[in-house]
Amino acid sequence: MFDTAAAVLDWMGVIVFAVTGGLVASRKQMDIVGFALLGTATGIGGGSLRDVLLGQPVFWVHEPAYLVTCLVVSALTFFAAHLPQSRYVVLLWLDALGLALFCVTGAERALLAGTGPTVAVAMGVITATFGGVIRDVLGDEIPVVLTREIYVTAALCGAAVFVTLSQVGLGREAAIAAGLGA
Amino acid sequence: MFDTAAAVLDWMGVIVFAVTGGLVASRKQMDIVGFALLGTATGIGGGSLRDVLLGQPVFWVHEPAYLVTCLVVSALTFFAAHLPQSRYVVLLWLDALGLALFCVTGAERALLAGTGPTVAVAMGVITATFGGVIRDVLGDEIPVVLTREIYVTAALCGAAVFVTLSQVGLGREAAIAAGLGA
Amino acid sequence: MFDTAAAVLDWMGVIVFAVTGGLVASRKQMDIVGFALLGTATGIGGGSLRDVLLGQPVFWVHEPAYLVTCLVVSALTFFAAHLPQSRYVVLLWLDALGLALFCVTGAERALLAGTGPTVAVAMGVITATFGGVIRDVLGDEIPVVLTREIYVTAALCGAAVFVTLSQVGLGREAAIAAGLGA
Repeated sequence: MFDTAAAVLDWMGVIVFAVTGGLVASRKQMDIVGFALLGTATGIGGGSLRDVLLGQPVFWVHEPAYLVTCLVVSALTFFAAHLPQSRYVVLLWLDALGLALFCVTGAERALLAGTGPTVAVAMGVITATFGGVIRDVLGDEIPVVLTREIYVTAALCGAAVFVTLSQVGLGREAAIAAGLGA
Repeated sequence: MFDTAAAVLDWMGVIVFAVTGGLVASRKQMDIVGFALLGTATGIGGGSLRDVLLGQPVFWVHEPAYLVTCLVVSALTFFAAHLPQSRYVVLLWLDALGLALFCVTGAERALLAGTGPTVAVAMGVITATFGGVIRDVLGDEIPVVLTREIYVTAALCGAAVFVTLSQVGLGREAAIAAGLGA
Repeated sequence: MFDTAAAVLDWMGVIVFAVTGGLVASRKQMDIVGFALLGTATGIGGGSLRDVLLGQPVFWVHEPAYLVTCLVVSALTFFAAHLPQSRYVVLLWLDALGLALFCVTGAERALLAGTGPTVAVAMGVITATFGGVIRDVLGDEIPVVLTREIYVTAALCGAAVFVTLSQVGLGREAAIAAGLGA
């Protein structure tokens, strides 16, 4: 259903968010099962909510590769999380990267499902932020998106630019590039 | 799908809850993006969960006016939130008003979807309480509905009265009025 | 849709989790409405998320008996919660029991919906853990599943054993028994 460029971004977003879930698990000194849970919930949470709200089949239910990827990434994070000097700084950077990726793919998926542009932008923001919100609520931290609103603003701008360009008939690849750059 | 009276109540409920979301954002000293996020999530959260559980299309996905309204109301709250002497008292009153509105429209929507009366009452309570629960979990407060159970009791009574009157064949408008009064 | 054995386990799981919801309400000194809310949300939360993700009708929406059972069990817990010496120990034991029950029925339901084995195991874990997560987030506690990962590991093993045995064509009842024992 996705074209290739959006699918690649979607995979990258899932991986990036799974790493951030692992980093929060590391900060909370959980064991490897906690890593797997938080990493998977963060990686697929945003997209799951998007698909449920759109009334579409949830993207990972018939594609187990997403789940396996999240588990593998969480396990790798488990063994590598002690390496960076400041896990929180890495977390913030990856969170911003994941937001940029998901705001575009979330909006794209909504447009493909036939929604109008306003709702598509909202879906981009939901997809981009909800995985991190689950992660932070489960890890008992204040959600990053609520304390660092700059990230949400960026996601909003990215999704808005992408949707606008898609609407005016620009090639999809160009729109994706612009949405990511914003 | 809704008749006119229920639609008006639904709109009022969305607006009232969006204001309460903005008030919590104000208490947490968020910026305007935080207001928009919390206001929108609070305004449409309860109805979204109701529609997903009922297997119905989510009410705002093909009706962007709901999203736009939440954003506008959140922005107005951003500029007006410092005016009342006690934001918490205003919050409690508006929460009670929104509960009364949504318990009726939630139960109505469930009956229209063909559920039995018990489930319709439960859907009324879910619609009425879930937006506020999202708001309080995101804002890192104890949910109002769990510490002030009197509100839930009121929502429960309102939904029960409405469903009972609907079942015995009373005119819908009269049932709505009675459900609100309860 | 369920065969008889799985249906019995499902009912037992709902009841066990409703009791744990009531125990948390008791620890937080809520009144009887708080008991009903937390008990019901805990009892039906995991299965609701499973059904929504699978795109199936939510199991309790057309079967009000589940709701009524949760309410009755919560009320009984309200009057009996002061009896055990340590509510927290009872809570942990019941949580483990509920996890074992739901990981099997969740995986079974996913297989019946036509998912592959990996996703079925994930659905077992989701069904088993999500009700408790809702309970603990609403009760403002750190979720038990994240601090006592041994429970999730048990749920994972139970679901995995059940799915493996189902796949190799073992009789369903034997698979259920093995999944519970694991």
